[in-house]
Amino acid sequence: MQFLYLASRSPRRRELLRQVGIPFRLIDVEVDESPLEGEAAIDYVGRLAREKAQTAARQLSASGWESAPVLAADTTVALDGRILGKPVSAEDAVNMLMYLSGRKHAVHTGVALFRAGKADRVEKVEICVVTTHVCFAPFEQQEIERYVATGEPMDKAGAYGIQGYGGVLVERIEGSYSNVVGLPIRETATLAARFGIACWQTENN
Amino acid sequence: MQFLYLASRSPRRRELLRQVGIPFRLIDVEVDESPLEGEAAIDYVGRLAREKAQTAARQLSASGWESAPVLAADTTVALDGRILGKPVSAEDAVNMLMYLSGRKHAVHTGVALFRAGKADRVEKVEICVVTTHVCFAPFEQQEIERYVATGEPMDKAGAYGIQGYGGVLVERIEGSYSNVVGLPIRETATLAARFGIACWQTENN
Repeated sequence: MQFLYLASRSPRRRELLRQVGIPFRLIDVEVDESPLEGEAAIDYVGRLAREKAQTAARQLSASGWESAPVLAADTTVALDGRILGKPVSAEDAVNMLMYLSGRKHAVHTGVALFRAGKADRVEKVEICVVTTHVCFAPFEQQEIERYVATGEPMDKAGAYGIQGYGGVLVERIEGSYSNVVGLPIRETATLAARFGIACWQTENN
Repeated sequence: MQFLYLASRSPRRRELLRQVGIPFRLIDVEVDESPLEGEAAIDYVGRLAREKAQTAARQLSASGWESAPVLAADTTVALDGRILGKPVSAEDAVNMLMYLSGRKHAVHTGVALFRAGKADRVEKVEICVVTTHVCFAPFEQQEIERYVATGEPMDKAGAYGIQGYGGVLVERIEGSYSNVVGLPIRETATLAARFGIACWQTENN
């Protein structure tokens, strides 16, 4: 069975990999997630994904583990050139959602697959950044307060989860749905195939 | 707790109602699903949804049950004015998918909410039809044969499941994702609200 390492703590990314039948093992990695001065959102998510995958792949390689590639991803919400991260309070979540109300924002996910070098092969990295546009309905403040009270927005970039209660807020999307959830499955399957890892491995299900 | 009856055997529709926190009970209903001569896809799904909801609501009313409204839905895939139903064989599934390869097709879901009349209130029905455009990547025949061999296409209109392995086939969508899965959650929540049934009822989770 071909597999990869997933360097992510997100249960949603695990679920998406399971959906497409790509077997994986988990690896934990810590990187500094601060954006650079003036860094654009698409550069930011691509760089973070690459740093996470690279750091994890080198850890594996140093500890003598077989060099299965490492997948990492980072997702962010952007509007008017502003990056919207996780809300720091319920009030912040309400403000963020009212700012997105009735407008179209971008969700960018950077995906990186990295295989560390060994005596017998060279290092290899592939990175892609996928953007989906999400149109929110115009909200009433009261509706948003009720949504925030469910607690769902607090650990999510842009203060909503499209795969949960937040799906009701979304009028339409243009692009990849799984990209908004946190991992664009078609593009991830394409990257994995370039490392010799097939999707639809039914043993995983 | 406010609830509705769901007249559908689809586990995916149940999952979507759970996602948005609308409590429901199941009711089984049989209607003739043949399209009328020359009936357009959007008329067909709207009519079927209405007939399922109406039939189930009148059954409930006749058996003396409380008149909670009944939700029903029907989803179809259409391209070039042709309605693509469930494939009848693996070969049919391969042909259907190769026909959709590299092109944009429409997925229409009809949603109906029906409350049967009683002495104290009038009948009420609300219907909507939601369309999402789905762009498939250009496929290799071999890739499609491998997908069909997983067995996933056989019980699905258009021979794919976007929420399963079939998600890998989709390049982008324009519109509602849940609509492609089988029930547009925003529009369903809006209809339910008109019958006094709120979404995000956390007791459901």
